[in-house]
Amino acid sequence: MKQRFDTVAIIGVGLLGSSLGLALKSRGMACHIRGAGHRQTSLDTALRVNAVDSVFLNPRDAADGADLIVICTPANLVCGVLDNILPVCSRAVAVTDVASTKLDICNHARETWPAPSRFVGSHPMAGSEKFGPEHGYPELYEGCVTVVEEGAHLDPGAHAAVAGLWRTVGANVVEMAPAVHDVIVARTSHIPHVVAAALARLAAEVGDASLDKVRALVGPGFRDVTRIAASRPEIWRDICLTNHDPIVSGLDKFLEQIHLIRDAIAGEQADAIERFFQYGRDARQNTVDR
Amino acid sequence: MKQRFDTVAIIGVGLLGSSLGLALKSRGMACHIRGAGHRQTSLDTALRVNAVDSVFLNPRDAADGADLIVICTPANLVCGVLDNILPVCSRAVAVTDVASTKLDICNHARETWPAPSRFVGSHPMAGSEKFGPEHGYPELYEGCVTVVEEGAHLDPGAHAAVAGLWRTVGANVVEMAPAVHDVIVARTSHIPHVVAAALARLAAEVGDASLDKVRALVGPGFRDVTRIAASRPEIWRDICLTNHDPIVSGLDKFLEQIHLIRDAIAGEQADAIERFFQYGRDARQNTVDR
Repeated sequence: MKQRFDTVAIIGVGLLGSSLGLALKSRGMACHIRGAGHRQTSLDTALRVNAVDSVFLNPRDAADGADLIVICTPANLVCGVLDNILPVCSRAVAVTDVASTKLDICNHARETWPAPSRFVGSHPMAGSEKFGPEHGYPELYEGCVTVVEEGAHLDPGAHAAVAGLWRTVGANVVEMAPAVHDVIVARTSHIPHVVAAALARLAAEVGDASLDKVRALVGPGFRDVTRIAASRPEIWRDICLTNHDPIVSGLDKFLEQIHLIRDAIAGEQADAIERFFQYGRDARQNTVDR
Repeated sequence: MKQRFDTVAIIGVGLLGSSLGLALKSRGMACHIRGAGHRQTSLDTALRVNAVDSVFLNPRDAADGADLIVICTPANLVCGVLDNILPVCSRAVAVTDVASTKLDICNHARETWPAPSRFVGSHPMAGSEKFGPEHGYPELYEGCVTVVEEGAHLDPGAHAAVAGLWRTVGANVVEMAPAVHDVIVARTSHIPHVVAAALARLAAEVGDASLDKVRALVGPGFRDVTRIAASRPEIWRDICLTNHDPIVSGLDKFLEQIHLIRDAIAGEQADAIERFFQYGRDARQNTVDR
C-alpha cells in the first residue's frame, strides 16, 4: 500500500532533509512539500534543486496544517522544534525525526505531547561525508536501515504512517525501544568513532622525527581502523553530547577490557592473550559475518 | 643491478617462505633453493609447487654453505634458528628474517654473532588471511613495504645483499632502527588489532536478546573498524608476546587518552570533545592521507 501525504513539512533542509524531499517527489508521495530552516541560503538551494515547493524560516509556519512533519535538524535542536510546533500540530498529523540518538528526544516527546503520542522517533542510518541541500539525492534512503521507535504509548496510526514513509522511500525498517537503540549505536558507531580518533593520534604522536616512517609503514589495517576518524568533529561532538550515558558506560566496559589485555600482555600470559583474540574474532563473526 | 645467489636457504616454507622461493625463481635470481621446515608435509608441498629445489628437516643442513639465508619461521623461533645455523654460516653469507617484530631478534644477533654482523633483520609487510606453502605466489612482495634494519654494526655487504634481495622481488625498502620499527608497528598495527578485538566484543556483549538488533544496525564504519578482529588469534598472541614492551607502553598512552575523553563526555564538555575529534581527524590526515 502506497503512502501519500497532502502536505509534508521538512524541518531542516540539509542532506537528509533535501534527499527526503526529492525521494517523496520522485515517488509522487506528496502533493506539497514545505521546507523550514534558519538560513535563507540553504532554503534557496533546497528550492532550486526542487527538494521542496515552499520555504519558511519558522518551523511552526511550515508545520501548521501539515499531515506529515519530519524534523531533519541536528539532534540537539529536535526537542526545541518539538516544543515550537506542538501548538499547531493537528490531531491527524504524524511527526518524526532523523536524529542518530533517540532516548532524550523520545522521552521529551512522551512527557510533553498528548497521549497517545503522534511523535514517533526515527533514525535512518544514512549519511555521507557530504552535507547541505546541494548534495541531496532521491536514492539516499534506498536499502538504508532505519530504526523506528516502538512503544505502547504511541498512536498506532502515526506509527504506521512513519514506518510506511521510510519503507516507501526504500529503507529497511527495524523497530526498537529508544533506550536499546542508543546502547547499540553507542557500541557499534559512537564508541568506534571515539576509539578511531584515539588510535590515529597514537600513531601520529610517535614523535615528529618518525612521522615519515609512520606514513611509510601504515597498511590497509590501519587505514580501515582509522577511516571514520576523518569524520566531521562537530557532528561527533554533538552525538557524544546527546548520547553521553550509553557512550560513557560502554567506554567504561571497553576500558576494563583494554586494562585486562594490557596486563596480560605485560605479564606475557600467552593463553589469556590468545583467548582475548579468539573472543574478538568470535564477536566479529557474531555481529557482522553471520 | 640484478642480485643473483648461488644457493639460497629458506628456513620455514609457509606463505612468506614459499612465495619468496617462487619470486626468486621467476626472476632467475637463484641457482638452487633449499627449503627447511619441521613438518615433512609442508616441505613436500613446497617441493610440489616448485617453491624450493631440495628440502631439509634441520635448518643447519639447509644453511650450510648457502650464500643467502632467509628465516621465514614465526617470530618466536627466529633466535633459536640463528643459534642453530651460526656454526655453519660462511664469512660471505647474508642472513635475514621476515618477523614482524625486530628489536629482540636484532639484539640477539648483535650479541651472539661476530661483528660486523652478517645478519640484517627484515620485515616485509606482506601477508594474507591465507597461510601454508600451497598459497604461495611469486608476486606477494611486489609493492610491499619492507623494513630493513639499519645500524653501524652491520656488515655493509650483507646489508646491501638483503636490501637488494627485497628490491629485486619488488618490495619498497624502508630502512630504520629495530627499536623505531617496533614502536611504530605497535601503534599502526598491533594496538589496532587489540582495540578492534575489544570493540567487536563490546558490540557482541550488549546482551543476547539484542544481538539480532546489533546485527541489523552495524554499518560500514563498524565493519571497517573491526575487520582486523577476524585475524588469526595465535598469530596475534605471538606478536603481542614478541613486541610486548612497545605495545604495553602504547596501550598506556591510549588508555590515558580514552580516560580523558570518557571524562569529557561524562562532563558534557563540548569544546574538549570537539577538540578531541579534531585532533583525531588531523592525526588521520597526517598519517594516512598526506
